[in-house]
Amino acid sequence: MGAEDPLPLWDPRAARVVERDVQRRGPAGAAFDKDQIVVEEPLELRVGGESLVVTMRTPGDDLDLAAGFLYSEGIVESMDDVGGIDHADDAGTNRGNIVVVTPRPGHELSIAHARRVIRASAACGLCGVENIAAVRRRISPIADDARVSLAVVLALPAAIRAAQPIFDVTGALHAVGLFRPDGTLLVVKEDVGRHNAVDKVIGHWLRTGARSLAGTVMMFSGRAGFEIVQKAAVARVPVVCAVSAPSSLAVDLARAIGVTLVGFVRGSSVNVYSHPERIT
Amino acid sequence: MGAEDPLPLWDPRAARVVERDVQRRGPAGAAFDKDQIVVEEPLELRVGGESLVVTMRTPGDDLDLAAGFLYSEGIVESMDDVGGIDHADDAGTNRGNIVVVTPRPGHELSIAHARRVIRASAACGLCGVENIAAVRRRISPIADDARVSLAVVLALPAAIRAAQPIFDVTGALHAVGLFRPDGTLLVVKEDVGRHNAVDKVIGHWLRTGARSLAGTVMMFSGRAGFEIVQKAAVARVPVVCAVSAPSSLAVDLARAIGVTLVGFVRGSSVNVYSHPERIT
Repeated sequence: MGAEDPLPLWDPRAARVVERDVQRRGPAGAAFDKDQIVVEEPLELRVGGESLVVTMRTPGDDLDLAAGFLYSEGIVESMDDVGGIDHADDAGTNRGNIVVVTPRPGHELSIAHARRVIRASAACGLCGVENIAAVRRRISPIADDARVSLAVVLALPAAIRAAQPIFDVTGALHAVGLFRPDGTLLVVKEDVGRHNAVDKVIGHWLRTGARSLAGTVMMFSGRAGFEIVQKAAVARVPVVCAVSAPSSLAVDLARAIGVTLVGFVRGSSVNVYSHPERIT
Repeated sequence: MGAEDPLPLWDPRAARVVERDVQRRGPAGAAFDKDQIVVEEPLELRVGGESLVVTMRTPGDDLDLAAGFLYSEGIVESMDDVGGIDHADDAGTNRGNIVVVTPRPGHELSIAHARRVIRASAACGLCGVENIAAVRRRISPIADDARVSLAVVLALPAAIRAAQPIFDVTGALHAVGLFRPDGTLLVVKEDVGRHNAVDKVIGHWLRTGARSLAGTVMMFSGRAGFEIVQKAAVARVPVVCAVSAPSSLAVDLARAIGVTLVGFVRGSSVNVYSHPERIT
C-alpha cells in the first residue's frame, strides 16, 4: 500500500497474511508448525450511499480494486466520474472492509443502472455469442499496433513471480501483471480471486492517471476465462497472456474484439489463440 | 451425463469441448494447429418462474449443478423440497442454458428469501468472524468419526486426474472429487468455476438419494477458499483436501465447524490445518 492508500486500522502485512498452526505430515511422521496463510475478507463497495456489491478479496489495494471494478464493469466511464473513493469513516472495525465511492459533483452514478450492470456482467445474454455482442456494443474494436516479441512473453511469468511478495509465503494467490511491450513491468497485483486481481491492476493504472490500458501487455498467473478477458478488453489491453488455458468464450471474445490472447506461457513455447500478428 | 440427465439439443462432447485454431510458437518458429478448448457458457437458474442466478459454467451435469447450488446455498433443505428440476422446454436454442426448478406440491421456495441468501452468500457479515458465525448458525458442528490414512489422501490427486476426461484435452478445468474414507472414488465433476464443480458434486450425490455428504472425503484440484469450504461444510463433509493452499477464512471456518482441512496434497506430504485427528 502506498501513502495514498492508508489503512490505519490494518497493519498491511498482518491484514494480507496471517499465521496459523499447521501439522506437516510426511514419511518422517507428523510435525506441528506455523504456516503463513493468505487473508480472505469481504469488501463491500458502496456507491452513492447504497451497497453495490460485496466481494471476497485479499485486503490491500482496496481503492484500486474499487476503481477498477467500477471501470471494467462500465459503471464509470473514467475516473473523472468519481468525486471521492475511500474507506468508510464510520464503520468501526469494519472500516477496512468498506469502500465508499461518491460521484463527482454534478454527476450521478445510478445505482439502479449499476445493479443491472453487475447482475448482467457474468452473462449479458444466455449464450456466448450474446455475451460477445454485448461487449462489442460497449467498446470499439481494438486496433492497437503494439508488438511483443516471443522472448518478452516467455519472460513474463518469471517477472510476475519476482514481484509477488505474498505468493512466496503462501503459494495461494492469483497474480496479474501489466507490462510495456518491451517487457518493462508496470504493476503486479495479487488476490484470492482472479477477477479482483484484474480489477486491482486496472484500477491502479487508471488512478495513476491513465485513460486506458492501451499499448500494454497483461499477464495472468492462471487461466483466462471470459470475464477476465472482458475486463481487459474493456480497458483496451491489446495483448493478454496466461500461464494456463483459455476458455472458449475467452478465445471467441478476443478474436471478435481485436485482443491477442496467448495461453500456456510455459518453458520455451506459447499458444496464441487470436491476432498473432502482435507476437513477433 | 447419465441417462437421467438428457440434453437433446447438445452433443455432450461438442458442448463441453470445442476445437479452435491455434498458433504454436516455440524455438522452431510458429505453427498453426487445432486446439481443444473447454467450453464456457452461462447457465440461468429459474426457481418458481423467476430468474434466481446466472453462473458461467461448463455445460453438462446442469441438473446436478442446480440441485447442489440450491442445497449448498440453503435455498432447499433437501431434494424433498424440489418437485421438478429440468432444462427449460420453451427457450429455443437457449434451452440447454436454462434450468427450471419447481418446488414440490404444497411447498414454496421463496424467491425473495432466496435472493437475499444468494446476495449474502459471499459475505453474510462484513468480517470473517461474522461469516463463520453465520455458518455456525446454519449448521451444527461436524463430529464425524471418519478416519482417512495419509496414504489414501496422497493418492487422491492421481485418482481425480484419472477420472478427468475433459482436463486431459484442455488442461483448463477445476475438478472436485468425492471419495469414501478408504479411497473409493464416488464421483468427480469438472467446471471452469470451482464453486460450480463443488455444487455439481454435492448435487450429484444428493440426487442419488443421499441426505448429506457425511462420512466422505472431498478433494479439490486447486485452492481451498472460504466459499468452497462453506459449501462442503453445509453438506457435512468431514474431510476437505486441496492440491494447493487454503485461505485464512477457510482455515478458520474449518476449525470452527469441525472440518478437517488438508492443503498442499503433493508428492509425499500434506499440510493439515484443522482437526488432524481424522488423518491417520
